[in-house]
Amino acid sequence: MSAADPAVAAVRRAVRSALDGLPATVPVLVAYSGGADSTALLAAARAVAPDRVHVAVVDHGLQDGSAERSAALVAELTDQGVPAAVHTVDVNGGGGLEAAARRARYTALRAARPHPDSPVLLGHTLDDQAETVLLGLGRGSGARSLAGMTTWDPPWLRPLLGLRRTDTAAACRAQGLEFWDDPHNVDPRFTRVRLRREVLPLLEDVLGGGVAEALARTAAQLRDDGEALDAVARDLLARASADRDAQDGIPGRATRGEERLDADVLADAPAAVRRRALRAWLGARGVTGLTDLHLRAADDLVGRWRGQGAVMLPQRLELVREHGKLRVRTAAWPGAR
Amino acid sequence: MSAADPAVAAVRRAVRSALDGLPATVPVLVAYSGGADSTALLAAARAVAPDRVHVAVVDHGLQDGSAERSAALVAELTDQGVPAAVHTVDVNGGGGLEAAARRARYTALRAARPHPDSPVLLGHTLDDQAETVLLGLGRGSGARSLAGMTTWDPPWLRPLLGLRRTDTAAACRAQGLEFWDDPHNVDPRFTRVRLRREVLPLLEDVLGGGVAEALARTAAQLRDDGEALDAVARDLLARASADRDAQDGIPGRATRGEERLDADVLADAPAAVRRRALRAWLGARGVTGLTDLHLRAADDLVGRWRGQGAVMLPQRLELVREHGKLRVRTAAWPGAR
Repeated sequence: MSAADPAVAAVRRAVRSALDGLPATVPVLVAYSGGADSTALLAAARAVAPDRVHVAVVDHGLQDGSAERSAALVAELTDQGVPAAVHTVDVNGGGGLEAAARRARYTALRAARPHPDSPVLLGHTLDDQAETVLLGLGRGSGARSLAGMTTWDPPWLRPLLGLRRTDTAAACRAQGLEFWDDPHNVDPRFTRVRLRREVLPLLEDVLGGGVAEALARTAAQLRDDGEALDAVARDLLARASADRDAQDGIPGRATRGEERLDADVLADAPAAVRRRALRAWLGARGVTGLTDLHLRAADDLVGRWRGQGAVMLPQRLELVREHGKLRVRTAAWPGAR
Repeated sequence: MSAADPAVAAVRRAVRSALDGLPATVPVLVAYSGGADSTALLAAARAVAPDRVHVAVVDHGLQDGSAERSAALVAELTDQGVPAAVHTVDVNGGGGLEAAARRARYTALRAARPHPDSPVLLGHTLDDQAETVLLGLGRGSGARSLAGMTTWDPPWLRPLLGLRRTDTAAACRAQGLEFWDDPHNVDPRFTRVRLRREVLPLLEDVLGGGVAEALARTAAQLRDDGEALDAVARDLLARASADRDAQDGIPGRATRGEERLDADVLADAPAAVRRRALRAWLGARGVTGLTDLHLRAADDLVGRWRGQGAVMLPQRLELVREHGKLRVRTAAWPGAR
């Protein structure tokens, strides 16, 4: 091992900095696949927090030999005295193979934590972040879909988001660590693979380089903007809670006192803040699956009020404006009068 | 002409809606190149506001025969009684040919307005908007670079931002209007051409369609978010103006009273709002060309204060924190003691 190698040092620095501020005694779980990113991550975690590292290898059962490969990864670690286990998951459910595998993996990793406060270290790099932002472009729901992944989203900790895939591979080579090239990483049936291998190289060529870094920078800034707007929206919600009085709960929490919102208070805020406030408030009322169209119609009860009727929401709920107050109620059965 | 054709109706509706809210008597200037977008735009403007349309044809002098082609476009309109003129511009200066041509064109169009309040109608479509967002991705300056073009950015009015290029071409054909395919539109030396002809089709293929619309939707939402954050930042700036008193100027305006900002007031705001406030305030102090790094260093005087020295800014200015107040001053000459 060569701690002096710049790539090795960069990965260790990233892991140390990400663990900084988390409890120094709690065990950490590293998600390990045998690929370059998680191999470099695991080596750095073992160097930085030697006695706290537990390892989870998730076997999705999607490739021939995956059970044997997972068992071999775990056996090698166990031999070295590192607590490690294979977690076999069942990939199914809607949204395509990539989404289903991701869901199953995250559920298994969450459950595999050695301690309720343990972070799960994931090997996502700046390249993964750039691909995530491009995936979000296709959804077109603004900052929400472009904000990418965040370093610390408990229990998920992503220390390598500022590093490139070339860095993790270099760190592995400098330490004499073998890693595995997952054939899924070059399978063009996966959207992410085509973004990585076709779209990003073309964008780099057309825009003159630096695109992956630019996408990652954009994601970070949009996340900052989103957090700032969320804070402003929480404040607006607290002020607009029509039934609140001095004794009534914590601002931004779904208390009984926020059953109704004062439309005049909302009306003074910018539309983007209003829509965020309405999304949070409706979410606390049990409304899920809101689209941009729902939110715009809901906001029209504030910003374009002309006496219109109830706005239909998911879950057979509706939003009405009565005497200057917004309220959610169960929608009348369509056949009833 | 067939006003009943759906594409013709859509273009007219878009122009009518964009002109709505502007003074109904002021003449409008249509920027006309003879391409499908501006040909459809001009026809719609003549239908919607028949006596108010003036036309400017900009000759960039970049192609053989451009002077003759521009003169022919104007002659045909003049024959029909429409006030029209060719504006020959000199394309030069830094930033590449596309940027220089754009600068020269906008300067000429602004000067060509028949009345100081005249809007200049531009033929940009949703496809142009999607390309603009992709161009911004490469810059990586967050919402600022992804917010694209806006419908009304005086004097620029872009009625067709919600329509596709296929719509404008269809509208021309339905009205028997000939249009010109600019060979520059397929010249791969231009970044925008490659985004249009290579990147966007690949993204549509990989992400399963709807990408141009998604990019336009994202731009609109980021613009809304940006306006909301700007409003919050203006409010913060007004509260943080350390020397303000009751008689002192209008919030958000660069008055003498805002020479110093109270760091403690700034510190309570989210970082994204603080950076916007600092950008606006420094701009009003004559600081231009601020990068993200400048702003983050400036913000560290608020958010990560540990007694550090002055932050260097462009224009040989620097930002200092003294007794809890931020102030811009001329940087000491490096050789002086």
